[in-house]
Amino acid sequence: MAETRIVTACLIIIGNEILSGRTVDANLPYIATRLNEKGVRLAEARIVPDIEAEIVDAVTVCRARHDYVLTTGGIGPTHDDITAASVAKAFGLAHTYHPEAKRLLESFYGERVTEARMRMAMMPEGAALVANPVSVAPGFRVENVYVLAGVPKIMQAMLDDILPELVGGAPVLARTVTVYAPESEMAAVLGRIEADHPGIEVGSYPFFRMEKPGTAVVVRGTEQAVIDAAVAQLRQHAAQHGIEAIDGQV
Amino acid sequence: MAETRIVTACLIIIGNEILSGRTVDANLPYIATRLNEKGVRLAEARIVPDIEAEIVDAVTVCRARHDYVLTTGGIGPTHDDITAASVAKAFGLAHTYHPEAKRLLESFYGERVTEARMRMAMMPEGAALVANPVSVAPGFRVENVYVLAGVPKIMQAMLDDILPELVGGAPVLARTVTVYAPESEMAAVLGRIEADHPGIEVGSYPFFRMEKPGTAVVVRGTEQAVIDAAVAQLRQHAAQHGIEAIDGQV
Repeated sequence: MAETRIVTACLIIIGNEILSGRTVDANLPYIATRLNEKGVRLAEARIVPDIEAEIVDAVTVCRARHDYVLTTGGIGPTHDDITAASVAKAFGLAHTYHPEAKRLLESFYGERVTEARMRMAMMPEGAALVANPVSVAPGFRVENVYVLAGVPKIMQAMLDDILPELVGGAPVLARTVTVYAPESEMAAVLGRIEADHPGIEVGSYPFFRMEKPGTAVVVRGTEQAVIDAAVAQLRQHAAQHGIEAIDGQV
Repeated sequence: MAETRIVTACLIIIGNEILSGRTVDANLPYIATRLNEKGVRLAEARIVPDIEAEIVDAVTVCRARHDYVLTTGGIGPTHDDITAASVAKAFGLAHTYHPEAKRLLESFYGERVTEARMRMAMMPEGAALVANPVSVAPGFRVENVYVLAGVPKIMQAMLDDILPELVGGAPVLARTVTVYAPESEMAAVLGRIEADHPGIEVGSYPFFRMEKPGTAVVVRGTEQAVIDAAVAQLRQHAAQHGIEAIDGQV
């Protein structure tokens, strides 16, 4: 196992619509995957309601625990969009118009400027802007906290803007082997394989397909050779016990 | 606004596979909806990795903050299924064989009993069982913490078992109106409507359809008459401003 430090991130998903079950979050899997390409591991996520004290608490706890915090949601123009004000509070900063964001929005909306629209230019004082090529109103960063939109298309564009500046460790690599045996019959050997190869993590995901129980085994780690050795051990076990094993997710 | 106490729940989703982006959680929207039918509001969710200290911390914090805590995931037979041991630790209880769970699993597996399978009978001492009509291995409850499977079909069956014993407040009712105006043009009136009708919550979800910007406005509350009055105010505003408004989610 390489002695590289693991760089972690926490995602804070802000919005009553997620907690009510009305809207299904689609951002977490996307963010987790893109962060991992940079060697940043999503190590925690929280879903919090549109309540200032809850957002302040989550930001305060998570920014101390992780290298990076990303938030999604709550930066639109309406009364329940309170993310910017809450992040300002978490950092003890004024919540005020960002000169550049104000200029961008005024120039975009022209005569259609309204007070509600200009709320989207209010940020913690001194925040750095995150570009929004989709709908102009920017996200922002304060220290290690990145505040992004909740609408997936806009969030993804903002993520493109910030990914180059994140400093990660080694990306997590993964190999999947599908074995046609119940998870509970694989349990002992999987535990052994993980113990035999420090630095890897063996996940198992049971399934039933055409009445046949199987297990997708995912071996994760930062070193390809160690992953390959663990997979070889798994395939050897399968061969010895007459268990069908197929590379990849079937 | 009725002075009914709001009964809240927190969902703790346990599993590296969710945080890695490999598996998309489908349980939260289902649980939120079913809890709400009982008048229990999902007020927070956390996604934590398969790390004992993280699970212990989340359970300890959340069970003090909410009426109910539900966990999903990590109760299978493999080495990374550490939810039961972690919950035992959070409560300072021994992690030991539950006599009834042991009997159920022995009777189900018969000669196919293995140590890995029997791990699924290990629980915090004194836990109450949650029935699993799908695959036998039970979930359990300690005080206000319900430990459920992560596989959706099994989780749903377990939820059916526990819902009758949850004591909730008034269920949240909702009406949706789709207006063909950008969210930022609706912001002011939506804030006003929420302020004019204490006890309701007005959510707005912008969309673009066939180049037309629109906003789904969701009015939530526990009293139908108050919700209806808020919707009437919204429709009146729309009529006065020539904004197309359609009942329901378009």
